Amino acid sequence: MNKTISLACGNGGEENNELISKVFYKAFKNEILEKSEDAAIIHGGALAFSTDSFTVSPLFFAGADIGKLAVCGTCNDLAMMGAQPKYLTCSVIIEEGFETRELERIVRSMKQELEINGAIVVSGDTKVVPRGSVDKIFINTSGIGEVLRKGISSNNISEDDLILVNRDIGCHGATIFAAREGIEMNSPLKSDCESLFPQVKALLDAEIKITAMRDATRGGVSAVLNEWAKQSNICIEIEEEKIPVSDEVNGICEMLGFEAAALANEGTFVLAVKKGDADRAIEILKTFENCSKATIIGKVTDAHLKKVILNSSWGTKRFLDTPSGELLPRIC
Amino acid sequence: MNKTISLACGNGGEENNELISKVFYKAFKNEILEKSEDAAIIHGGALAFSTDSFTVSPLFFAGADIGKLAVCGTCNDLAMMGAQPKYLTCSVIIEEGFETRELERIVRSMKQELEINGAIVVSGDTKVVPRGSVDKIFINTSGIGEVLRKGISSNNISEDDLILVNRDIGCHGATIFAAREGIEMNSPLKSDCESLFPQVKALLDAEIKITAMRDATRGGVSAVLNEWAKQSNICIEIEEEKIPVSDEVNGICEMLGFEAAALANEGTFVLAVKKGDADRAIEILKTFENCSKATIIGKVTDAHLKKVILNSSWGTKRFLDTPSGELLPRIC
Repeated sequence: MNKTISLACGNGGEENNELISKVFYKAFKNEILEKSEDAAIIHGGALAFSTDSFTVSPLFFAGADIGKLAVCGTCNDLAMMGAQPKYLTCSVIIEEGFETRELERIVRSMKQELEINGAIVVSGDTKVVPRGSVDKIFINTSGIGEVLRKGISSNNISEDDLILVNRDIGCHGATIFAAREGIEMNSPLKSDCESLFPQVKALLDAEIKITAMRDATRGGVSAVLNEWAKQSNICIEIEEEKIPVSDEVNGICEMLGFEAAALANEGTFVLAVKKGDADRAIEILKTFENCSKATIIGKVTDAHLKKVILNSSWGTKRFLDTPSGELLPRIC
Repeated sequence: MNKTISLACGNGGEENNELISKVFYKAFKNEILEKSEDAAIIHGGALAFSTDSFTVSPLFFAGADIGKLAVCGTCNDLAMMGAQPKYLTCSVIIEEGFETRELERIVRSMKQELEINGAIVVSGDTKVVPRGSVDKIFINTSGIGEVLRKGISSNNISEDDLILVNRDIGCHGATIFAAREGIEMNSPLKSDCESLFPQVKALLDAEIKITAMRDATRGGVSAVLNEWAKQSNICIEIEEEKIPVSDEVNGICEMLGFEAAALANEGTFVLAVKKGDADRAIEILKTFENCSKATIIGKVTDAHLKKVILNSSWGTKRFLDTPSGELLPRIC
């Protein structure tokens, strides 16, 4: 570890993983934490438990705001473990002088999104700190979900699975970047921020054999695939041209010098689904408004264990690595 | 509500209550939240669920640091509902450039305190924000506890109860104030920050009839008593001279112009215990290292419903009100 914490330590990529494993996991070591993915599975497998703090800047952006994000983020983490979001806590740290009207707007967004999930806020905490001690408002939500389907885990992905995404990727990262740089878009680019439980519920109800799910937040699809390849000791081979990316996101990527697969998402998830169920899963996902581009993007092989390979349409191959460096701070 | 959020809105007193009820409770309204005290009771009464964000400044102070505080704070909220702390989440927001060694020191404190509670961290989140977006480090912990004794609630306090405190009050608030003002103390003044589950467990094991418990954090003993008087529609009469306050804390109070009863605590709790069990409860509390001054401080009457009366040793009476104004920001 470096002597000081850098922005890269919060990027969802390599440096972030190092900080988590060398400082937090090392101290807090226990069996549940070690198996913990987007959420921890507790209470004999019956409940999922997760937490997330949100620091996004700007607070309001195309498609969502920090309030919607704070509910989606934690509820999605629960949904990814096959759990129905039930109880949330909401803890806010507000900078002195913050406008009450903006706070009310944020809280209204939270309420709306809670309803989509069928979840309620049962406890909270409110801190106000002097000007300059925090930038406007940070929100933490922690959530408990009821596990509807046990055994969903990114440790068990095998060559029997195909790799899917539910929609076109990178919209959240591109939107925040555009908003922050003051780029005027003549296009409908907006954050994909959305509650994923309805999609997960539809897949579970149809008894789709889901091995693993993960929302591709900080570090994007690249971070998820690399983590899965390591956890399940597999090689994931992705067909580059199959990854759905909108023209707007591609444009922003060129400006940023990023790959779309490294951009953050807030309503986009990757699935590992048993081969025989993959087409049916795609059909189900496509019935959702923002998922017309749901598709199979890759497969599992043993070509390079613990690695992700990107196959281009010209027949070339390259590794898709876990993102590193600063990426975009305060993305969520 | 005022147009902007003031420091007073985070003081644990009147303005804080207004913000919570008019903005958060109004939007999130539900039966569990309405009954929620230090923690919400969920899952058919079997579990307690609580959250707290910690922003204390300075990070390290006599008797504790932000890490110990973050574990004690949430575990104590669970213990106050008669629950054994089991699972915690830990979400940190770190300022770019923060020293890794300080972070490790904080995490070690957390680990130590987790062990005292028999709790584990099962999930976490790590955000790093650019310099100036947050002051050093803020920590959120959320926790789930297993309810050992059902029905502990500050809605049911009656004239059959006596009011107790487990130790001398105000040490945390006085310590933070002294540290911040650079006051050199020639005394052993230190924060009372401590995990309360061992004390609660001893009381439950001895089958003490506890009606309500509340740790007297922001807003101090005054805030707790006033909240209880309102919630249970009772008058609480306190014998002023019975409230244990150390000379050091009294000294700081004179400088601050505060009452000790309005100072924050982090290991001090108020109990409402059935009359017949009060003496036995005090005996049990006194077996704990920091509780030699545990004592009965008052009783419940119908003199002035929803009010707290302070009886002085000269026979005069006055109301002890919920604290208001800015008090001390970033106390926890």
